[in-house]
Amino acid sequence: MPFPGGQFLEIAILQKRVKEYCRGALSVGYETIEVSDNAITLTPGEKKDVIRQAIDSGLRVIGEVGKKVSTTDMGELIADIKNTLDAGSWKIFVEAKEIFGEGLNEDLIQQLAGAVDISKLIFEIPLVSVQEVHHFQCYKMWMWLLETFGPEVNIANVEYDDPMKLATLRLGIGPDTTLKQGAFCRSLSGEFTKKV
Amino acid sequence: MPFPGGQFLEIAILQKRVKEYCRGALSVGYETIEVSDNAITLTPGEKKDVIRQAIDSGLRVIGEVGKKVSTTDMGELIADIKNTLDAGSWKIFVEAKEIFGEGLNEDLIQQLAGAVDISKLIFEIPLVSVQEVHHFQCYKMWMWLLETFGPEVNIANVEYDDPMKLATLRLGIGPDTTLKQGAFCRSLSGEFTKKV
Amino acid sequence: MPFPGGQFLEIAILQKRVKEYCRGALSVGYETIEVSDNAITLTPGEKKDVIRQAIDSGLRVIGEVGKKVSTTDMGELIADIKNTLDAGSWKIFVEAKEIFGEGLNEDLIQQLAGAVDISKLIFEIPLVSVQEVHHFQCYKMWMWLLETFGPEVNIANVEYDDPMKLATLRLGIGPDTTLKQGAFCRSLSGEFTKKV
Repeated sequence: MPFPGGQFLEIAILQKRVKEYCRGALSVGYETIEVSDNAITLTPGEKKDVIRQAIDSGLRVIGEVGKKVSTTDMGELIADIKNTLDAGSWKIFVEAKEIFGEGLNEDLIQQLAGAVDISKLIFEIPLVSVQEVHHFQCYKMWMWLLETFGPEVNIANVEYDDPMKLATLRLGIGPDTTLKQGAFCRSLSGEFTKKV
Repeated sequence: MPFPGGQFLEIAILQKRVKEYCRGALSVGYETIEVSDNAITLTPGEKKDVIRQAIDSGLRVIGEVGKKVSTTDMGELIADIKNTLDAGSWKIFVEAKEIFGEGLNEDLIQQLAGAVDISKLIFEIPLVSVQEVHHFQCYKMWMWLLETFGPEVNIANVEYDDPMKLATLRLGIGPDTTLKQGAFCRSLSGEFTKKV
Repeated sequence: MPFPGGQFLEIAILQKRVKEYCRGALSVGYETIEVSDNAITLTPGEKKDVIRQAIDSGLRVIGEVGKKVSTTDMGELIADIKNTLDAGSWKIFVEAKEIFGEGLNEDLIQQLAGAVDISKLIFEIPLVSVQEVHHFQCYKMWMWLLETFGPEVNIANVEYDDPMKLATLRLGIGPDTTLKQGAFCRSLSGEFTKKV
């Protein structure tokens, strides 16, 4: 499911060309777009309007929240998620600097998971190519998310060479066999053992 | 020569389905499988049995040793290699945490090379995507192995973007031209100089 | 525009086979070659001769300078660039250890830009796979070059997974929207705003 990153729409918003942008996205074959307010500032009402305009034009929307949110604004982050979902978004990318930093702020993610439907959220892990974060640190964040929310948890910013690695971890194999819902642990507990 | 990683067989061993696993591997076209006891525990006798079962079913075996071995167990590591070769393995992956850590433990590798036929061993370098190791450190490990054991030394965990880089180093070109058996050094010593 | 790296020619120079090398490069379809004196030593006159020989044989030349040059030799670096351009090189790769280290030595690059035509230079960023440099540091070097010399500045050592990332930065989008000649900043200043 390819879709254009939110920044393209942000530029269209600056240019007051949201309608043209949606029409253009549809005309080249996209069925989904991202709606973000990463580099621009939108009020909750304006964000809702843009999402609705996109949906009305026939697109599915993935919202984005949290880029500029600090840990002290957990209430604001949750309000943004709820507003973005209310407007009709299908899923929401969550990136909050202090939540997904060099390590995960596990308490804050748990707090978030308690407040909204986790299956609606897609967690954006830091990008090795942009931030001072190392591959093995991203790998640990993946594992914590899988262990905490199960093998189906939505994870984004999986760089183009990582999908296979993440896929094996979701199955409980690969460099880490400890995922309790995974193939290794379930085999260890005798779940699939051949009867002899 | 593609082959399924040892963990798939380890899961089959847990499920008491080794015969079915070998038959399955053959049926989808594999000619080689890896036999490891990375996440499970096998006695030397059990490991030998699994390797022989695979060979009897028509597969070629690459064994694996050392995952859990510390430097104090060099005798155990060598015994494992010998047992794995005795059983009929074609080659053996060697990964020992304290040998291939952030840097190579060169003394221990030399000790290993003195005890077994180096051409049977495939050295597993740490994976950048999993461990706290940097690309340039892996690169230095490659160079040390090439310098110490020659351009044909077997190296594993070459990530998908590295084969070309390693190939140039084996030829004595690329970022490092110092390999004495390589094209640069041999040209420098006049070996291929055109007679004029 | 693929071309063989300079080391292949350096080996040919050692073997006294420059003519054969140029003929061979042309015969397999190359239109451009790199002429460097990275691992070998050439006098300015010898370097000029090799470049002219390549051009005379029908090839386009990209020169390389600076590999072994320290910051104290700025005059020598500039002399090497001028000599390499005088000989007829189309462009020149610049890599100077102390200019492109863990961070950029911005003063020295500015000094360089003041002395020669910047559009002739291709800046070689350190390689993550070889040097102790992190992706995010390369990314910062890209940004500084784009901000200082504009979106068209020539950058080399863009690893195979980076062209798309660098391309977005040249356009002023991607992880950084601050490039003043870029799409975001120009939209922000109202340049493309729809008249309503």
